[in-house]
Amino acid sequence: MAHIALPEGLPGIVGPLTQYPKTAQHLRGLAQQLLRGESTLTPGERELIAAYVSSENNCFFCENSHSAAARHLLGDAADAVEQVKLGPDSARISEKMKALLHIAGKVQQDARTVADEDVARARAEGATDQEIHDTVLITAAFCMYNRYVDGLGTWAPDDPALYDQHGAELAAQGYLR
Amino acid sequence: MAHIALPEGLPGIVGPLTQYPKTAQHLRGLAQQLLRGESTLTPGERELIAAYVSSENNCFFCENSHSAAARHLLGDAADAVEQVKLGPDSARISEKMKALLHIAGKVQQDARTVADEDVARARAEGATDQEIHDTVLITAAFCMYNRYVDGLGTWAPDDPALYDQHGAELAAQGYLR
Repeated sequence: MAHIALPEGLPGIVGPLTQYPKTAQHLRGLAQQLLRGESTLTPGERELIAAYVSSENNCFFCENSHSAAARHLLGDAADAVEQVKLGPDSARISEKMKALLHIAGKVQQDARTVADEDVARARAEGATDQEIHDTVLITAAFCMYNRYVDGLGTWAPDDPALYDQHGAELAAQGYLR
Repeated sequence: MAHIALPEGLPGIVGPLTQYPKTAQHLRGLAQQLLRGESTLTPGERELIAAYVSSENNCFFCENSHSAAARHLLGDAADAVEQVKLGPDSARISEKMKALLHIAGKVQQDARTVADEDVARARAEGATDQEIHDTVLITAAFCMYNRYVDGLGTWAPDDPALYDQHGAELAAQGYLR
């Protein structure tokens, strides 16, 4: 049971977003801009960062939801989702995404450890300032969403089919519902 | 120097907020709601949580800015700011704030460790669901803001007078400028 009263039957972050709408509008708006706003990173690539960070934070609900969203958006490249969790550098993704996920991993752990050479590697693979910015902020934002979900002890269903359905909805409709 | 191009002379989070306004509007709106919106926790108590979490995350800019904001808002109780960083339980703050900061400390480290007894302790000291919710989300949000500031390698001035001035502005004007 969650640590505070939340509407019944709503999994993960959906419960507190529903119960506390004044903060929810900003949390939803930020997710929509970061994961679906105009960007040279595809929505699938951005959901991959979200899934990876949620996995590193051991947030079961977020990892499963954003992994499913990433799979739906990546299509033929959906296998990359589980691969990056085993280590971005051995995943079948672009060298640019490997470099960005390396930065994401550092921001998740201790953001002060991001080094000039980490950023230089990403730039050498073609990453722009906006892409480096967005990678840092997506990572930082999921360090928030993950803590919101787990700190309140929200309900996380076990059934993989529910996450697949939730991910399909996130892929198709985004975060502003 | 920051890892990406940012406007010159703007410290900490002010640089990326200025350079990337599409995400800034949500980041500012969330901070305003959490730290200045209607609440039974005073703005000073909420800035105290922000300062404590930023200190635990070793984010120099955020710790100094929100410590200064908390001092300006707490008035006669301003000494509490440095006391909570040495350990909330020995600080001269209410038993309710001690219990809420104990939850904040767990959310900052690993949100999955928040236990029923941590929440029961807060409730026994009079904390409401909304206050527990806000404590978790303020903590989670500062785990984001701190990472945004440090992951981009933003500039943090050394001069304490600058933080005092910045904190006075935050105390008087909030986050929507």
